[in-house]
Parts: sequence; structure tokens; C-alpha cells
Amino acid sequence: MNECVFCKIINREIPANIIYENGKVLAFLDINPINRGHTLIVPKKHYGDVYDITEDHLRETVAVAKKISEAVKRGLGAEGVNILHASGEAAQQSVFHFHIHLVPRYEDDGLNTWPKSDYKEEDFEKVAGEIRSEL
Amino acid sequence: MNECVFCKIINREIPANIIYENGKVLAFLDINPINRGHTLIVPKKHYGDVYDITEDHLRETVAVAKKISEAVKRGLGAEGVNILHASGEAAQQSVFHFHIHLVPRYEDDGLNTWPKSDYKEEDFEKVAGEIRSEL
Repeated sequence: MNECVFCKIINREIPANIIYENGKVLAFLDINPINRGHTLIVPKKHYGDVYDITEDHLRETVAVAKKISEAVKRGLGAEGVNILHASGEAAQQSVFHFHIHLVPRYEDDGLNTWPKSDYKEEDFEKVAGEIRSEL
Repeated sequence: MNECVFCKIINREIPANIIYENGKVLAFLDINPINRGHTLIVPKKHYGDVYDITEDHLRETVAVAKKISEAVKRGLGAEGVNILHASGEAAQQSVFHFHIHLVPRYEDDGLNTWPKSDYKEEDFEKVAGEIRSEL
């Protein structure tokens, strides 16, 4: 926990451009932005991923993502936003403190946030059944 | 509203592989999956995007995303998940009924969900100030 870079930002042990803070959530600029205003939103308590975070903390974190979405629209003139999350190395998570990326989008910004895939599903109902069996 | 394809799925006017349903939220398989078990999670009430959706409905929708994340881990053997959202045409939103994509990830699935960008921020504190001024 002590070595977690996001915990260090939360504890003000390393600097960041803080955007917003409340009792449970902190938002700050991504140091490697993919677009102007790229913000990370994190629970102040350390959770590794979406499996680990409590439902309550997840709800609080996402509520801040909505708030920041509105602020980047008004403050930066964003025309839209992407909200992106990864849990697990297989999903390309790189910092293992739960976080949400908020990427402001601007007309003709040239960014492509949609993953390319040539995957074709053969049997939708079988897949649906396998997921439903665990709910 | 009547022409919204997700509203039609919610109202059972067109078929879908339903994964989960509660009073406020529906989850069903994406008809154009980018990986096995690619699921869409939508509020049953029609909201266009993250600006339009109420905070309460957003929280309910995201709580279901966590639940489905757990089910695809157990049911499909997913090693991780990406949770992706777009609001606005500039952000590559294509169906204008608020929705969250849940993309199960598997080791070495070859999918790259991280957007490529050569954007470099010149002045972090100026950007942070512009967002903060609207919070």
C-alpha cells in the first residue's frame, strides 16, 4: 500500500494537479494525458480493481466522474467524454489502485478510443447462459 | 424515444440476449461483440448521455457493471474487464441511449483497448484551473 503511487498522491506525498476532492474521492490530471484535460478519478481508500472496490465506493467515484464530465464541457469546451476503466493486467491495468479515466473529447481531435477487434461470436445464447449462471 | 433501439430492447419489442435485469437497469449482450461476453448495461429510462442521466440512475447502472464483472470472471473465466463509455458524437458514441460497455478480457486475447495518442500537455496547471473553475 505504501508504494502505491495513487495513495502517495492522495496523501500529498507526491504532487499532482488536483481537480476535485471530497471525503471519499480524489480527481487529478493524468501525467500522461491522451487529450487535453485527461483526468483520473480514484477512491481515497486503496482498492486494487473493480472486484475489490465496495459498491458504495464505486458509486461515489462514478458520481465524481459525472461532475468532472460537466466541468470539462464548460471549462474546456469539450464536446463529449470517454470514461474508461481497466481491471486486471489482462485488461491493460497498469496502476493497481482502482481508477477511472475521464478523457475529454473535441470535434476532430483525431483520437480513436474504440478498440479494434475482428472477434465474431458463434453462440450468443451459450455465452449469455454462462454469465447468467453466476448472477 | 420510440425509435431508440435500446428502448425497444428494454420494452421487448426487439430481441436481445438478456443477462440481467432489475427495476432500473438492463444488461444484454452487444450484438457486435469485441470479445467473448461483451455486455451492454443501460438504464431502463431513456437518457442520452452522461450529462443527461441522473446521478441516481448512473449509480444504479454502474453497480450492475460491478455485478456483471464478477459474473464474467466466474462464468467465462475472464482474467479482467474493461468498462468503457462514450458520451457525445465527438467521443464516438453511436447509440444515443446512455450505455456502459463491459468487455471481458482474457490473457493474450490480443485486444488493445488503450487509445493511441501523441498528445503532449504544455501547461497542466492552466488546464486544471479551467476545469476547477467550473466545479
